[in-house]
Amino acid sequence: MERTEIGELGEFGLIDHLTKNFEIHNASTIVSIGDDAAVIDHFGKQTVITTDLLVEGIHFDLMYTPLKHLGYKAVMVNLSDVYAMNAMPTQLTMSIAISNRFGLEALDEFYEGVYIACEKHGVDLVGGDTSSSNKGFIISVTAIGEVLPDKIVKRSTAQKGDLICVSGDLGGAFLGLTLMEREKKIYLENPQVQPDLENESYVVGRLLKPEARKDIIDFFEKNDILPTAMMDVSDGISSDVLHLCKQSNLGCVIYEEKIPVSDESRKAAYKFGLDPTVCALNGGEDYELIFTLKQADHDKITLNEEISVIGYMTDPEEGCKLYTKGNNRFDITAQGWNAFQK
Amino acid sequence: MERTEIGELGEFGLIDHLTKNFEIHNASTIVSIGDDAAVIDHFGKQTVITTDLLVEGIHFDLMYTPLKHLGYKAVMVNLSDVYAMNAMPTQLTMSIAISNRFGLEALDEFYEGVYIACEKHGVDLVGGDTSSSNKGFIISVTAIGEVLPDKIVKRSTAQKGDLICVSGDLGGAFLGLTLMEREKKIYLENPQVQPDLENESYVVGRLLKPEARKDIIDFFEKNDILPTAMMDVSDGISSDVLHLCKQSNLGCVIYEEKIPVSDESRKAAYKFGLDPTVCALNGGEDYELIFTLKQADHDKITLNEEISVIGYMTDPEEGCKLYTKGNNRFDITAQGWNAFQK
Repeated sequence: MERTEIGELGEFGLIDHLTKNFEIHNASTIVSIGDDAAVIDHFGKQTVITTDLLVEGIHFDLMYTPLKHLGYKAVMVNLSDVYAMNAMPTQLTMSIAISNRFGLEALDEFYEGVYIACEKHGVDLVGGDTSSSNKGFIISVTAIGEVLPDKIVKRSTAQKGDLICVSGDLGGAFLGLTLMEREKKIYLENPQVQPDLENESYVVGRLLKPEARKDIIDFFEKNDILPTAMMDVSDGISSDVLHLCKQSNLGCVIYEEKIPVSDESRKAAYKFGLDPTVCALNGGEDYELIFTLKQADHDKITLNEEISVIGYMTDPEEGCKLYTKGNNRFDITAQGWNAFQK
Repeated sequence: MERTEIGELGEFGLIDHLTKNFEIHNASTIVSIGDDAAVIDHFGKQTVITTDLLVEGIHFDLMYTPLKHLGYKAVMVNLSDVYAMNAMPTQLTMSIAISNRFGLEALDEFYEGVYIACEKHGVDLVGGDTSSSNKGFIISVTAIGEVLPDKIVKRSTAQKGDLICVSGDLGGAFLGLTLMEREKKIYLENPQVQPDLENESYVVGRLLKPEARKDIIDFFEKNDILPTAMMDVSDGISSDVLHLCKQSNLGCVIYEEKIPVSDESRKAAYKFGLDPTVCALNGGEDYELIFTLKQADHDKITLNEEISVIGYMTDPEEGCKLYTKGNNRFDITAQGWNAFQK
């Protein structure tokens, strides 16, 4: 691979180079890259802001994460938080610090992923910077979105009896991670062995190229649905549903058999000797949405195959329970359901 | 010093602990810490956003930067960018990643500095997170502010003939840095030698505890002043005035004798054998404001001793010139005026 030293361009040349393909799509972007700050006008809507700091070796492993996917994912995990407020993302700032082991071509790959993610979701890159680090790759993203004041959906507003729903399927990203960590270990022990990823593209994709669920928020808008509470599934639903319960001061019942797990994830789990339900409950990084819905709205979602009803909210005294396929009842814990209690 | 392991608190316990003293001051803060994202409503004003990523060993040296000052400064450098748009800061997100060499007491010190800075400027901490790093201290700050649409001041809107003004005095932070780097070197060579900082508190303070110039923005508001262009002085005015000129498509004349340098900075410069003007032009990190003003507004600023007129904008063909005390003329370059041409 070609290598151009970043220092050759200078700080401002570098920013120009990296952002030259980014165009402004939103009327709300008043001032973009090139001033002390960006200026945004959401014209009567409210502004949603979320931020993430991602550190190499802690949040991602470049041994099996292509830089283009990393740029894409760094954007997606932040957009997911904006959608989780029932808001539409509009702007993004992206700052990175990199050690001198990366050349300009590596940065270009990273920004290509950022660009694709921004284009797909109609988001404008309005700021950020690029600096050095002594070690590793550090990414800081802030995503900004807009929402009508009466459409914001928080975590704390679920009601007793509301249905608990999730989008897509769960556990795939964790199984992708398990697979990549296994292949990494094999490779480190014997670099001649080629990775065995056959038939595993689904779980690998779930890990390396998550999709923030804009489609679900669009579906809510089109079908006049307002969830009573919502958050994104980043730590595994057992942890996330506990947040919804705690912040709404309620309990819940979740049915194991209702938890959506893809066939590919199920197969991968069996291959690794793991329980698919445990992976779905505790896995994390799925970037799906978990939300609660008034029972009266149930008919509005039945035709959407991307939404599963997995349980309902209860009085806080009833605690947070998982009903298993075998009709056992377990307390849901922050580390998720302990499969070894069976 | 006592040391509590951060892991003892857990992620959410840690966030609760670090943010427990922060109160909400702004009506514009609709949703704060604890949801997927913060929600802000600037009620007809526009929203200003700026972000900075600060990496230990690149942007700061913990050998001579107390953590409380670091927290304070990390906030200030971002507020400075908000003021540079003629806007008022309202919210802040703060994310940090730290290696396990830091205990909870160190984090508390850092957040105390963040708290003091936020309180002083009436800014609400609305988000962020705390995670691990393999090495060093990484800080990511996003500052959010508000401004009436017709009050935004950009870099690109200066006019020919406008006066060039700066707030405060320049070069102090660079001299503080020079002093601390000298003391660090002496200490590393001989740890028994105590640092010699006598009479140097001004330049040390300029480095370690910069003040974002809210007072200047308040003065503009009170005296009905709208600069034609503005930015903050973070890279040294020679570099910054070139940005104003380039973005406004103009040239400029700067008078060496008009550049404000404090007596303390002048003394420190002579002590190190440096030219005070070179320090002021190229030093950086002063976090003052540089702005242009219609000549008709000159009378409005004469009574403010914190504002100096240092030159004026010219046609672009005339280039960017420094007129020295000795009546020589030099081109201003991005590295600032080259003292060795004399």
